[in-house]
Amino acid sequence: MTTPAPRTTLPRTFTRDLAPHDGQTVRLQGFVHARRDLGGVQFLVLRDVTGIAQCVGQNLTLPMPESSVEVIGTVKAHAKAPGGYEIQAQQVHVLSEAVQAPPVEIPKMEWNVNPETTLDYRYVTVRGLKERATLKVQAEIVAAFREHLIDEGFTEIYSPKIVSAGAEGGANLFELDYFGQRAYLAQSPQLYKQIMVGTFERVFEVAPVFRAEEHATSRHLNEYLSLDVELGFIESEEDVMDVETRLLSAIMTRLRARASAEFDLLGAAIPDVPQHIPRIELLEARRLVQERYGHAVGGKDLDPEGERLLSQHYAEQHGTDFVFVTKYPKAARPFYAYPEGDLTRGFDLLFRGIEITSGGQRIHEHAMLLQSLREYRIDPAQMEGYTEVFKHGMPPHGGFAIGAERLTAKLLGIANVRYARAFPRDRHRLLP
Amino acid sequence: MTTPAPRTTLPRTFTRDLAPHDGQTVRLQGFVHARRDLGGVQFLVLRDVTGIAQCVGQNLTLPMPESSVEVIGTVKAHAKAPGGYEIQAQQVHVLSEAVQAPPVEIPKMEWNVNPETTLDYRYVTVRGLKERATLKVQAEIVAAFREHLIDEGFTEIYSPKIVSAGAEGGANLFELDYFGQRAYLAQSPQLYKQIMVGTFERVFEVAPVFRAEEHATSRHLNEYLSLDVELGFIESEEDVMDVETRLLSAIMTRLRARASAEFDLLGAAIPDVPQHIPRIELLEARRLVQERYGHAVGGKDLDPEGERLLSQHYAEQHGTDFVFVTKYPKAARPFYAYPEGDLTRGFDLLFRGIEITSGGQRIHEHAMLLQSLREYRIDPAQMEGYTEVFKHGMPPHGGFAIGAERLTAKLLGIANVRYARAFPRDRHRLLP
Repeated sequence: MTTPAPRTTLPRTFTRDLAPHDGQTVRLQGFVHARRDLGGVQFLVLRDVTGIAQCVGQNLTLPMPESSVEVIGTVKAHAKAPGGYEIQAQQVHVLSEAVQAPPVEIPKMEWNVNPETTLDYRYVTVRGLKERATLKVQAEIVAAFREHLIDEGFTEIYSPKIVSAGAEGGANLFELDYFGQRAYLAQSPQLYKQIMVGTFERVFEVAPVFRAEEHATSRHLNEYLSLDVELGFIESEEDVMDVETRLLSAIMTRLRARASAEFDLLGAAIPDVPQHIPRIELLEARRLVQERYGHAVGGKDLDPEGERLLSQHYAEQHGTDFVFVTKYPKAARPFYAYPEGDLTRGFDLLFRGIEITSGGQRIHEHAMLLQSLREYRIDPAQMEGYTEVFKHGMPPHGGFAIGAERLTAKLLGIANVRYARAFPRDRHRLLP
Repeated sequence: MTTPAPRTTLPRTFTRDLAPHDGQTVRLQGFVHARRDLGGVQFLVLRDVTGIAQCVGQNLTLPMPESSVEVIGTVKAHAKAPGGYEIQAQQVHVLSEAVQAPPVEIPKMEWNVNPETTLDYRYVTVRGLKERATLKVQAEIVAAFREHLIDEGFTEIYSPKIVSAGAEGGANLFELDYFGQRAYLAQSPQLYKQIMVGTFERVFEVAPVFRAEEHATSRHLNEYLSLDVELGFIESEEDVMDVETRLLSAIMTRLRARASAEFDLLGAAIPDVPQHIPRIELLEARRLVQERYGHAVGGKDLDPEGERLLSQHYAEQHGTDFVFVTKYPKAARPFYAYPEGDLTRGFDLLFRGIEITSGGQRIHEHAMLLQSLREYRIDPAQMEGYTEVFKHGMPPHGGFAIGAERLTAKLLGIANVRYARAFPRDRHRLLP
């Protein structure tokens, strides 16, 4: 079994910080990343959150991979060791011994197993280098999102996830029993962020949302992290796109400063965000992909192939990964989208071929909202909890939402959004 | 109805920034906080997110309170006006007219209505000055929580809220149908934050948790915001309490810098966090309240009155609002608490008479965990999704969780935690 490490006054050193300790005795803590016993000499590669260190010694304990250990030894420059230093280990203390080998070799960059299997064992495969890098990038995206919006005068809100009705009228809702009442899991904080514009004018939220969508695609999750923004006293949806442009720029700046190593590990590039992201009206975008690529888009919207082609056009012709598609028709937008004839002030943001944001100006007047509900054939009585808000002088406002996993996946070249979430939920997956 | 405000190149000025514009024409935007028509002259008090401004003029439109408006006028020093300046208004444009008066007078500090009514109409009462201040303080608490932990090397995680089993064995879970499978709403991210210690060593999460508790108390919500922390490679729960002490200190520092006005408005004081928060073992604490106050605590824990008295003792004798109660017995802790004989390495943090945190060291070894499940008479088969994690060399670790609303309430002297959340959920309340 395991032996308690002796208490020591030696502070912990991280593997990335060996150079300043050259020649000194240090205490490392981490996981057994790899081990090799050459008879007279043992090698143990220790992994901590900052990197790895090669530890060499004699008569060393070499517990099973992923065991957690403490190594006490002397730092020595060694050209062939990772980072240019190795540890001449005097002691290896096992803090907690693994009792089963992981289903994949954690140190390897590629695992030759069914990807579903890596999700089944996510409670340990999440230690993989790519997995760690992906989730670290996600945390930095979210941190930049908050930090930038706070700098622009936004206030964070925390809206309920157990709700009495869906924000978009009832489809795709998970239902639950709430002390005998029927309740649902929020598919969006839409109503609440609009209400809170009345309090703070500019608000954001970072929280899970839930969509009971039956279909399995590479871009949908049944539970995902929604980065929501809403702001009041706007002139039009143009103001909202301006905020989103600055926000994306701030996110990329933070990623460059704090996650370059992760992008390098994953072979991905951090995009430049142009000062002005191009904006094209939907009808014009449909015409463009038809004329330029011969792709006729059905329906009222852009289909995934249309999104891909439009992005390709902007990448090739304008050198940018980003494009706003604006003026979506009512048929492709929820009832609360601000109307302009048959169109709305709704927009999508495409990034590298896929929509990563939906946003727009919202209806802020009570009478206009009731009119819209009639047009959408939604019973106003059912939406009273929503419409009452607009009796109280809501200012012109708009906002958008970014799916954190989808943005992470597209930034890192991850084909399926499930691998951009630590513990994904899909049609069949509730574990771990 | 409303008239569109003319587009103007005049940038928006906030009400707190009038002084530097003395004598200049400015454009304000906000809500009609109050209005008065003296016949020849009209007064309109405009409220924006930074404060209020008194606007005076002739033949001004004075729409219903809470309407959103834009005022164009000249800044003039005026000793009796709030902030020392008033606006000599040339134009009032109604951006969006309120069509119904709010159920309370938003500008008043005290509302003489049933508090339940203010919750019923939360979609507009949330504009109240006290409500805004409360929710602003909460946002600053959460921002400080994240900022400090990131500074200490923690990484944010996002765990699923739809889960297949409860973290604490099955009580108080909301159940839902997940595509034909039985699923639950997570009552805690406990398992997931422990797993992620294997990836990032130190992690935190800010997310809603759900407790299907039937009882209505002033300290419980059925959905609340949990501020969760977990860290690996600890020696004991002492390390966890050290992290929490520094964290609380950072929170109070940020509140002093960014929310002093809100504390003043609410008549509350930001507490000092001692460098070392006193720590007392539970058995000793029970003895103390018995001997000092004659209060005999039943059960194995501290009851609410015991918590109150113990806090009182530390406030009076040691001058601090904070005290850690340590070494809780197994009977008062979940199966994953690290055992020491009949006790555990679990602790609570009391603040001003109430527990605001539960934390401790966790079991990190597989065999010890199975033994604990047996002792707690929990079927290991039911907890396999949890126990499998511990086959993989989890390091010694521990953590804690802070209920954001409870901390907010205690800091601000709010007696019922429901008023420290924008849209509370209780036994009967699903709206708004």
